Amino acid sequence: MNIPSAFWLVPVASVAALGMAWFFFRQMMQEDEGTPRMKEIALYVRHGAMAYLKQQYKVVGIVFVVLCALFAFMAYGLGAQNPWVPFAFLTGGFFSGLAGFFGMKTATYASARTANAARKSLDGGLKVAFRSGAVMGLTVVGLGLLDIALWFVILNIFDTDGLISITTTMLTFGMGASTQALFARVGGGIYTKAADVGADIVGKVEADIPEDDPRNPATIADNVGDNVGDVAGMGADLYESYCGSVLSTAALGASAFAASSIDGMQQKAVIAPMLIAAVGVFLSLFGIFLVRTKEGATMKDLLHSLSLGTNVSAVLIAIATFGILYLLGIDNWLGLSCSVISGLAAGVIIGQATEYYTSHSYKPTQKISEAGLTGSATVIIKGIGTGMISTCIPVVTIGVAIMLSYAFANGFDLSMSAESLSHGLYGIGIAAVGMLSTLGITLATDAYGPIADNAGGNAEMSELGEEVRHRTDALDALGNTTAATGKGFAIGSAALTALALLASYIEEIKIAMERANVMMSNVKGELISASQATIPDFMNYFQVNLMNPKVLVGAFIGAMASFLFCGLTMEAVGRAAQKMVEEVRRQFREIAGILEGKATPDYGSCVEISTRAAQHEMIFPSLLAIIIPIVVGMVLGVAGVLGLLVGGLSCGFTLAVFMANAGGAWDNAKKMVEEGNFGGKGSFAHKATIVGDTVGDPFKDTSGPSLNILIKLMSMVSIVMAGLTVLFI
Amino acid sequence: MNIPSAFWLVPVASVAALGMAWFFFRQMMQEDEGTPRMKEIALYVRHGAMAYLKQQYKVVGIVFVVLCALFAFMAYGLGAQNPWVPFAFLTGGFFSGLAGFFGMKTATYASARTANAARKSLDGGLKVAFRSGAVMGLTVVGLGLLDIALWFVILNIFDTDGLISITTTMLTFGMGASTQALFARVGGGIYTKAADVGADIVGKVEADIPEDDPRNPATIADNVGDNVGDVAGMGADLYESYCGSVLSTAALGASAFAASSIDGMQQKAVIAPMLIAAVGVFLSLFGIFLVRTKEGATMKDLLHSLSLGTNVSAVLIAIATFGILYLLGIDNWLGLSCSVISGLAAGVIIGQATEYYTSHSYKPTQKISEAGLTGSATVIIKGIGTGMISTCIPVVTIGVAIMLSYAFANGFDLSMSAESLSHGLYGIGIAAVGMLSTLGITLATDAYGPIADNAGGNAEMSELGEEVRHRTDALDALGNTTAATGKGFAIGSAALTALALLASYIEEIKIAMERANVMMSNVKGELISASQATIPDFMNYFQVNLMNPKVLVGAFIGAMASFLFCGLTMEAVGRAAQKMVEEVRRQFREIAGILEGKATPDYGSCVEISTRAAQHEMIFPSLLAIIIPIVVGMVLGVAGVLGLLVGGLSCGFTLAVFMANAGGAWDNAKKMVEEGNFGGKGSFAHKATIVGDTVGDPFKDTSGPSLNILIKLMSMVSIVMAGLTVLFI
Repeated sequence: MNIPSAFWLVPVASVAALGMAWFFFRQMMQEDEGTPRMKEIALYVRHGAMAYLKQQYKVVGIVFVVLCALFAFMAYGLGAQNPWVPFAFLTGGFFSGLAGFFGMKTATYASARTANAARKSLDGGLKVAFRSGAVMGLTVVGLGLLDIALWFVILNIFDTDGLISITTTMLTFGMGASTQALFARVGGGIYTKAADVGADIVGKVEADIPEDDPRNPATIADNVGDNVGDVAGMGADLYESYCGSVLSTAALGASAFAASSIDGMQQKAVIAPMLIAAVGVFLSLFGIFLVRTKEGATMKDLLHSLSLGTNVSAVLIAIATFGILYLLGIDNWLGLSCSVISGLAAGVIIGQATEYYTSHSYKPTQKISEAGLTGSATVIIKGIGTGMISTCIPVVTIGVAIMLSYAFANGFDLSMSAESLSHGLYGIGIAAVGMLSTLGITLATDAYGPIADNAGGNAEMSELGEEVRHRTDALDALGNTTAATGKGFAIGSAALTALALLASYIEEIKIAMERANVMMSNVKGELISASQATIPDFMNYFQVNLMNPKVLVGAFIGAMASFLFCGLTMEAVGRAAQKMVEEVRRQFREIAGILEGKATPDYGSCVEISTRAAQHEMIFPSLLAIIIPIVVGMVLGVAGVLGLLVGGLSCGFTLAVFMANAGGAWDNAKKMVEEGNFGGKGSFAHKATIVGDTVGDPFKDTSGPSLNILIKLMSMVSIVMAGLTVLFI
Repeated sequence: MNIPSAFWLVPVASVAALGMAWFFFRQMMQEDEGTPRMKEIALYVRHGAMAYLKQQYKVVGIVFVVLCALFAFMAYGLGAQNPWVPFAFLTGGFFSGLAGFFGMKTATYASARTANAARKSLDGGLKVAFRSGAVMGLTVVGLGLLDIALWFVILNIFDTDGLISITTTMLTFGMGASTQALFARVGGGIYTKAADVGADIVGKVEADIPEDDPRNPATIADNVGDNVGDVAGMGADLYESYCGSVLSTAALGASAFAASSIDGMQQKAVIAPMLIAAVGVFLSLFGIFLVRTKEGATMKDLLHSLSLGTNVSAVLIAIATFGILYLLGIDNWLGLSCSVISGLAAGVIIGQATEYYTSHSYKPTQKISEAGLTGSATVIIKGIGTGMISTCIPVVTIGVAIMLSYAFANGFDLSMSAESLSHGLYGIGIAAVGMLSTLGITLATDAYGPIADNAGGNAEMSELGEEVRHRTDALDALGNTTAATGKGFAIGSAALTALALLASYIEEIKIAMERANVMMSNVKGELISASQATIPDFMNYFQVNLMNPKVLVGAFIGAMASFLFCGLTMEAVGRAAQKMVEEVRRQFREIAGILEGKATPDYGSCVEISTRAAQHEMIFPSLLAIIIPIVVGMVLGVAGVLGLLVGGLSCGFTLAVFMANAGGAWDNAKKMVEEGNFGGKGSFAHKATIVGDTVGDPFKDTSGPSLNILIKLMSMVSIVMAGLTVLFI
């Protein structure tokens, strides 16, 4: 076993993250949960959420058994896969599921406690909510690093084929995380929006009762949905990006530095992304402790306090990267550090752009509110227009980040020689790692949102009075801002991660060809073994250029897959929401006294509808996402797969930004009207913007975020199936 | 001069088309225009439409002067462009503009005459409307072939550098057609939907008056819009596809058969697409004459009669192609004929799929109607979902057509050798020609739609009574069906044409490099001149593979450009519609007795708003479409441009299908409710589906169709700017 001592920082960081997560969890649990009514409501939500999670894990379990059997057959039957893969696949899924379970458990315990703390003070509420969000953030990075460290040690002991073999095998555990994330995002997204849309349509539009009103039968389902969608779903999504970026960068590093004449340089390149992630954990912790407020803090103070935490962490990791890579003694440490900065800067810019297009402090969203004066149709048209235009800055930013991180990493050598290419791609990977290194705190601010949202729901249903509701509203509004930037961040990091995965796909093909003893011709036409081939050799051998009709058809299918996947999830929400509407209408009609608050609605039946719809509806789109890359691989080969991935990535990223931003803008346009503009609550413009908000719900919380997974998962599936694709060559 | 005698069929077909167009025009003009009131309304519409067209041509004129100066500078100043290009550019734009002018003139004369003929019988109305639509179809193909024939003869006389030089120069006249089409589609699209959306929101939703009611001040503007958007815009779009497919295929043929040992084979390959188009003209004429109805025809008879015409033409051209290519004696005539069949079949399948997803005879649209029961939000969600899912069949169809037409043309040789590649790409081009060969009749069925629509408007405003209105409604409904399939056809042909243009981009780069005397290394690393280089050499030299970050960034920008362009046009419609709504509301408020029909509304001010909005709003998105490929070419070079085009094509095509189908489905979902389902006219579901229809208006008639142009124009701009890109290498 030959593991450098610096590596041990990774398990240490993992234990630190998990330990602090446990500490914050205990701390939160010691808070008082409030009145019996508050406890009761929290219990409803907790039960609903856990029941759903159990259901979902059952379905996911079946999928895992099937896929695991397939991988085992590929590994032991066909010899077309590394024998460790079935196990790596399982741990990836298991840890991701565990992180979702812990995060959601914490969130459902925290909401009533947040509401109760808000009875005393605003900053008390913030602290409980944010620290509980931090449990999710730290659990995700802690378990992610644990899984990485574990496999790195195991494979260093048992796999003697060198670092390329080790890193490409590890990469496949991302497939487990991807599969788990897919179901969490899609199922959770359908669940939460079916409930939300259904509750809004009948509650706000038809019966004219406020959000989270206890008279609305869909309220509990709506609150459950926030937990299963925004906490568990978002966590699984970012768990995957986090592990995916570190693992693919390690694989790219192993390949780029394989021929290095300096002893140990390859190993340094492999552990560099892990070290950046590990240091990022400590800096996230530092940032989390910075988030504290003084008594009687204003809304502005709160926002300042949250941004202080994330910004300080980001700046510190930027500085620390130079130190880490310098001390590690990796070649071109200065350039690689600049690649990391490119990734970080891209994350910040995309976050800012998201805020500009979705916050009603700025023109675009204000104009959507104003369009409410001419009715819901113009609100929708305007929102779709704004969302589409808002793709410009993020795409250009990602484009610049790709070029810069590539160029910094190979010393601005654009010759596309084998060496400059592999170093450049490593740079793109490490930029993704940079962007995700402070995930511990950025995810904390994300998970904070639904907790605050639920606290508001709890306060409303427990009738805690105007002032408390006002405080939880403030916390919730803050959560909306962080959620929007968080979504931009999740999409941006997914794009860079997918790009790194795309590049490491070639590494997997190489390994698969070696395993199958396939010979190939290099660019000069000489017959060589795959292990000797460079990336340009592969591009030439498989004709992965833009005049190859297979590449073109692949790109078309990739673009279509994004739309199809979105369409299926949109339809799923629409169908489920219609059922929910009918059930709520039925209860209003059949249960006497429900609207006067004299009778209790049947919350359980709504929870049931969401649960069943989510379970049922998530299967088809999810399987499709797994099957498309496999079929394209078998029919169109390596060239077709790369076309598919590039088409899917470019179109899917843009589509995801569009949907997330349009949804966010509609949400805030409605809030702006509710604050008294253009006629205020109950006005014509308000009704119009509610329609926008309702349409935006599945945009921003179901289809848009699911695309993050799709673009990563298609790469992951291709990577894991590389062995099969090679058999069809 | 060395022109084979078969070529002369092309100018003959052109003259035949133009002659028949003239004949149909005269025939239509001899019809009676009806009552004084009918004449008056027709005059309003005609004046509005012509005034708009004049305005638009002024703006386009300025753009043409600027671009022409730029091309002249490139040609004569930098020597980076063929000296014929500025002139070719001008004729392309001029002929396209002329076709739009004639088509619209005919349409505006025909609507009152159609309404008047419908006073006597349904089939009388059909005949007038359809033959007037045929004027547009025949003018487009006639002028297109004229321009092609003219330049082919001129360049054969003056350009002595051979067929590759001739065909690549001719290709650039497509740039003129593209630029003209861009403004026609975008400007016309904004005009028509600003008026339509504005009229619907205040008229149907707020004031509860029917469509085309003379009390609605925006009615005339709405009718003008149908002419400038659906007649002139659609005509310019397909003029460009038609010429683009023939010209790019000719260029690909010149290159693929350049090394043929058989004398004259290259020339045969160049004129083959022209001959198929020419024969298509005669078969279209035959089809047009087939469209005749018996007295007292039912709706089903009408549809049957129209489809008979188009289907017979399509089947005959499929058969004729074998004859043409056999008689021409081109290599692999059988395979190439099968390529043509692939294109034709793809067109038919896409048309059928479009009908399935947008007609309320089928489930998807019926479900959207049903969603009206739970309100406008679910209608929108459902419609967007349906639209996104509907991209699947067209994309897969195009994918299969690409693979088949490629494989048929090179004898199923997938080795990607230089020869198999160039022959395969020629096959893709000729498939596009096949799809468009019967444009004469397919465009006639398209242009028929707005004429029937306007006839209905005329009948309503002239108060011709129930029965006449009923007949024009039947004609209009028929037009909606043909419009939906027509749109699918326009998008499909745009995709294949853009693909052929993409392939010929490399030819232009080759010519530009020869002109600049740039040497390059081939795949084996030997230094050669560009004229000796094959497509694989170019792919290798410019590193146009999917691991090149420039290609990846280009693909991202291409995908984004589609969304940005759509977003800008959506916003433009939204803004203009809001102005229209305010104006209509103002008139209802300020002009006493307007709603009781006692006072005449001020139609002129609404026409003015649409005209000004269209003029103003079309500039920015249009310039963007021209500038993006230029900038990408200068910054990211040939690899970046090809990435841009592939990203833009794959994402833009999918997005266009989504938008067209969602819009069409919403339109018909509303119609289904109006037919008495789910509560019928005036019900809750009706109001909800009207919102869907209104949102769908810019989807299907502004943004979606504009994307057809965008994906072709970006290729065209890249082709024309190849000389400049090469200077930056």
